[in-house]
Amino acid sequence: MPEPEMEGLTNFLYEMGLLKRYKRTGWWIAGIDNPESIAEHSFRTAIIGYLLAVMEGADPARTAALCLFHDTQETRIGDVPSVGKAYVVTAPNPELTADQVADFPAEVGQAVREVVDEYEARETVEAQLAKDADKLECLIQAREYQAQGHEDVPPWIETSAAALRSESARRLAEACQQVPPRQWWKAFAEAYPRLVNPRRQPTEPSHAEADAEDMPDRSVAEDVRKR
Amino acid sequence: MPEPEMEGLTNFLYEMGLLKRYKRTGWWIAGIDNPESIAEHSFRTAIIGYLLAVMEGADPARTAALCLFHDTQETRIGDVPSVGKAYVVTAPNPELTADQVADFPAEVGQAVREVVDEYEARETVEAQLAKDADKLECLIQAREYQAQGHEDVPPWIETSAAALRSESARRLAEACQQVPPRQWWKAFAEAYPRLVNPRRQPTEPSHAEADAEDMPDRSVAEDVRKR
Amino acid sequence: MPEPEMEGLTNFLYEMGLLKRYKRTGWWIAGIDNPESIAEHSFRTAIIGYLLAVMEGADPARTAALCLFHDTQETRIGDVPSVGKAYVVTAPNPELTADQVADFPAEVGQAVREVVDEYEARETVEAQLAKDADKLECLIQAREYQAQGHEDVPPWIETSAAALRSESARRLAEACQQVPPRQWWKAFAEAYPRLVNPRRQPTEPSHAEADAEDMPDRSVAEDVRKR
Amino acid sequence: MPEPEMEGLTNFLYEMGLLKRYKRTGWWIAGIDNPESIAEHSFRTAIIGYLLAVMEGADPARTAALCLFHDTQETRIGDVPSVGKAYVVTAPNPELTADQVADFPAEVGQAVREVVDEYEARETVEAQLAKDADKLECLIQAREYQAQGHEDVPPWIETSAAALRSESARRLAEACQQVPPRQWWKAFAEAYPRLVNPRRQPTEPSHAEADAEDMPDRSVAEDVRKR
Amino acid sequence: MPEPEMEGLTNFLYEMGLLKRYKRTGWWIAGIDNPESIAEHSFRTAIIGYLLAVMEGADPARTAALCLFHDTQETRIGDVPSVGKAYVVTAPNPELTADQVADFPAEVGQAVREVVDEYEARETVEAQLAKDADKLECLIQAREYQAQGHEDVPPWIETSAAALRSESARRLAEACQQVPPRQWWKAFAEAYPRLVNPRRQPTEPSHAEADAEDMPDRSVAEDVRKR
Amino acid sequence: MPEPEMEGLTNFLYEMGLLKRYKRTGWWIAGIDNPESIAEHSFRTAIIGYLLAVMEGADPARTAALCLFHDTQETRIGDVPSVGKAYVVTAPNPELTADQVADFPAEVGQAVREVVDEYEARETVEAQLAKDADKLECLIQAREYQAQGHEDVPPWIETSAAALRSESARRLAEACQQVPPRQWWKAFAEAYPRLVNPRRQPTEPSHAEADAEDMPDRSVAEDVRKR
Repeated sequence: MPEPEMEGLTNFLYEMGLLKRYKRTGWWIAGIDNPESIAEHSFRTAIIGYLLAVMEGADPARTAALCLFHDTQETRIGDVPSVGKAYVVTAPNPELTADQVADFPAEVGQAVREVVDEYEARETVEAQLAKDADKLECLIQAREYQAQGHEDVPPWIETSAAALRSESARRLAEACQQVPPRQWWKAFAEAYPRLVNPRRQPTEPSHAEADAEDMPDRSVAEDVRKR
Repeated sequence: MPEPEMEGLTNFLYEMGLLKRYKRTGWWIAGIDNPESIAEHSFRTAIIGYLLAVMEGADPARTAALCLFHDTQETRIGDVPSVGKAYVVTAPNPELTADQVADFPAEVGQAVREVVDEYEARETVEAQLAKDADKLECLIQAREYQAQGHEDVPPWIETSAAALRSESARRLAEACQQVPPRQWWKAFAEAYPRLVNPRRQPTEPSHAEADAEDMPDRSVAEDVRKR
Repeated sequence: MPEPEMEGLTNFLYEMGLLKRYKRTGWWIAGIDNPESIAEHSFRTAIIGYLLAVMEGADPARTAALCLFHDTQETRIGDVPSVGKAYVVTAPNPELTADQVADFPAEVGQAVREVVDEYEARETVEAQLAKDADKLECLIQAREYQAQGHEDVPPWIETSAAALRSESARRLAEACQQVPPRQWWKAFAEAYPRLVNPRRQPTEPSHAEADAEDMPDRSVAEDVRKR
Repeated sequence: MPEPEMEGLTNFLYEMGLLKRYKRTGWWIAGIDNPESIAEHSFRTAIIGYLLAVMEGADPARTAALCLFHDTQETRIGDVPSVGKAYVVTAPNPELTADQVADFPAEVGQAVREVVDEYEARETVEAQLAKDADKLECLIQAREYQAQGHEDVPPWIETSAAALRSESARRLAEACQQVPPRQWWKAFAEAYPRLVNPRRQPTEPSHAEADAEDMPDRSVAEDVRKR
Repeated sequence: MPEPEMEGLTNFLYEMGLLKRYKRTGWWIAGIDNPESIAEHSFRTAIIGYLLAVMEGADPARTAALCLFHDTQETRIGDVPSVGKAYVVTAPNPELTADQVADFPAEVGQAVREVVDEYEARETVEAQLAKDADKLECLIQAREYQAQGHEDVPPWIETSAAALRSESARRLAEACQQVPPRQWWKAFAEAYPRLVNPRRQPTEPSHAEADAEDMPDRSVAEDVRKR
Repeated sequence: MPEPEMEGLTNFLYEMGLLKRYKRTGWWIAGIDNPESIAEHSFRTAIIGYLLAVMEGADPARTAALCLFHDTQETRIGDVPSVGKAYVVTAPNPELTADQVADFPAEVGQAVREVVDEYEARETVEAQLAKDADKLECLIQAREYQAQGHEDVPPWIETSAAALRSESARRLAEACQQVPPRQWWKAFAEAYPRLVNPRRQPTEPSHAEADAEDMPDRSVAEDVRKR
């Protein structure tokens, strides 16, 4: 028999596991066969929210927490795609959250409800930045699907960019539309020689050589930059 | 040409996208063919960290932020499995983070480095709870794989439980080992009649009937509880 | 420029493609990571409907057609899980279908609307058998997931069995709960020697031997039967 | 002990489940890593057959039934790719079906054999339209893979189009080659404002706003149309 | 324009890529949704062949080469499941290989044909051991699927074991049926303390501690051994 | 109780199974969501090594064996991506192999260690060709991902080509960069009429016709050649 006070929390943690399995349905509409999960989207949304809040002078940890919980109701109603909302009415998210945490120890349930209520009310700077993070994450993911060859994602990029409210989110969206996903490892690869020297003591010269072969070489990296 | 100050941030956000693709390697060792991503693990870890912190009187948003970033270095070094650590030495995580945020606007890079430094130092209550959240998430995921039929996950459950330090994490781990993953939707299904009445106005009686057919009925739910 | 009369049909066929990507959400709740698509479910539902109608003296082709279209509205509203219906109100399926076929040539749209209207009204024998086919398919799929090791599917088996209305569906459900999924190829393997003789003229004796090695032998098949 | 008369049917339904797992091998040749299942192909083929038959004044439900069963023999012989047929001789499909239904109640087996015999003889209008539906489905799927970035599918589009016999299938194929897969949801998205007004009563203004943000806006939809 | 002598080889290497996509169909029959590829099976078969040959005093590299090419014809005929061979006649593998290498430089084509001819003739010790390796690989994979929860694989284990001819393969099969898949990393985990000391110089004590937490501890490993 | 001499071998074979699950991490960096396994890469690497050795007058079976084992240590250390090697020091591969085979019968362990030692020393022609095969396989896989639409793989093509040492590998790499992946089945499809005549005796004319419909026709094949 589980301790009664722990049972509601335990149920909630298993319920959250469903977000690892649930896919973001919008990407199916965009033609992606096996898209990201809601958990994956929420992870990067929270990272983005943290950064945006620092840039905008808001509370970064609080913003990240708002992002973390922003889709947690979808365990119960699924991820109704935007185009489907003409046909579907769902209970308000704060009501769903209230049901999810009904058997929590009181102060824990309260802390979760406050996060969801704040996000849904969209009144604090943190809540507005969390919404921007949600949209910006969608834009970045669309850019990544585009680099995988998917032709039908531009509306997701453009609609997400158009929905952004904060100056920082708009500047980031602008940069993300110019910088391709491959850029990050190109920059990383270029830093390799500088990184490798102070830190590595290869014991076998033949290995060092093999590693050099494994590295995208300088001229290739130059090419990548120019694309 | 992207705005120079945005370029480092943009690269970082694309780099974080890699955590949606990288799988948690320990599960491959446990025999799971297509396991969760690092992003998915980090998502629920942060949810757990938030709850644990409320229970322990620590800062929940800060704890969630520590959890969010706790595996972000794995974009560069992969997820070296525990058993492999006898053969591998990696640079300390704070050094990796410093490289990842080198081109950030100063205060943003600083905010990320502080989160990683605090987590790695394991000195604050929040850092200790974030580590507990990491372990507890592993235990819960192992329980879910077990319910899918995987026979070889018990060591992950037991080792994770043994590593927990806080009272709240230990109580939760105890409950998770007693409560099966199916319990959450059994509780949800039982609440259905209570939930459905105040909220729904089905316009077509034949639909309401169809829905009733779609619901696991009470006696079934009773069975689930007893298993 | 596409021929205007063909455009609505073309859009509909691409829209139906979405059902290959959309997963049946109930299975995610049951803990299955990568479950069947709605298209896959609809395929076997229609096969079952065809057989049930022959058994019950109804129109088999009509019943199969009702089954084929029974979830086609889910391209627009997703597959809301049963447990979620307490929180979600969706437009009636006939309205959704009317929108989907609005730009069809008139008699084609009419033919699709009639199928959906008949299924939803649940008044004809064929419509009742199509609903039974839907439930029986779910039961059979649950049995298959069970044989893959998934522990949490029994409520899907029991609820589906309890919802069946026709005598033939009930007899089939009874048999499906007794016969394991592996039975079909055991019966097939046992028939191998009888099947192979009249039909094959192996030109190379060494090949015939290799094939014999590849076949589950008789004693094994016996074992399977006894499990 | 299952009821003897039900056992053959039960085995067949489990055997049909294999078509959810079997992939269409032609797509592997075309370079698609994780292509559709035979069940998914058969589902949309039957939908297409239903529509084609209405357009051509044939029996739509019968045509759909012919489509449903047209690949059911592949549980026993696999999906031998076209290019491989130079090396492989398989038993005629009606013989395979006869073996599959050998233990059926007589009239049910008869009904299945008749469907397969009619399809294979290719003499009725319905059988010819079912074959056209098979080819047209392949063409449409190829167009969808193309929109996902796959460069090597054009031969599947062109060969399928060239094999069509009926006027309606040719007109549809023409339109499918001009209309991109994204067109369906563009049309859907454009209808959103018209759809949403008569039907929705959003209780919370802030929600209505959020939804508006989630919708691809008009100008974007215009862009999609022009691509 | 590619160099003519290289074109046949290049085509062959792309053709071999298909074996990464083609799944082993027998596992679909056994109920596995997303089974291993033919390339994956061939890889471990070749490893096994190498070891068996050393044990039996045969030529290990030659045996591995026979294993490598043993299923390469399946790019053209697919992997016809054993139970299906009653309905299918395929061209002999040496003929298929001759077609595959027809445009090779003469001595390269000759070297590939010799490998396939030797394997198919089953006359040399190496060819017999390669066949044993093929069967033993199937047995081991079945054991791994069993540990993932799949209930229907025992016939694959038993039939494979029964088909083995060499003493070494039989002894290995015997051991594989007694030793569970998890055993390898249990042994590895137990060796951890011995492995880690001579090799690692952890620079940060707190890290060493964290690592210790990450390791399945001794008592757990003991438990695993006893299961 | 397993026979002690077999236990080390059995563990090793299960350990090798992990390479079917482990993905090649470099492709995740390149943006591929679900890339090939290490086992799949090793399979084609060994095929390539066999062919290269014939072309260069080296020992083909020995070269294939070196290729087979070249990544077998990654079960213990994972596949550290090239760009990550600035942050990671791993034990030398021969040490890892020595640990993996420690409980082997002496001569079997010796035979495996010799293969790994020879590969890592890179002194024999066979070892150098095996390294070339490793690089060439990466190039070919990158070309295949490119044909699937992935835009970010060119650096993998160029870096791999630049690392090749043998004349034969360079000529093959040149051809692979000119010949698209679809070329192999185009050549195969063109050979169809020649292949089919001497070998097939279709018993049913209507079938022969259906097959003809299934074949990409000549003019299409011509188109493919010209792309």
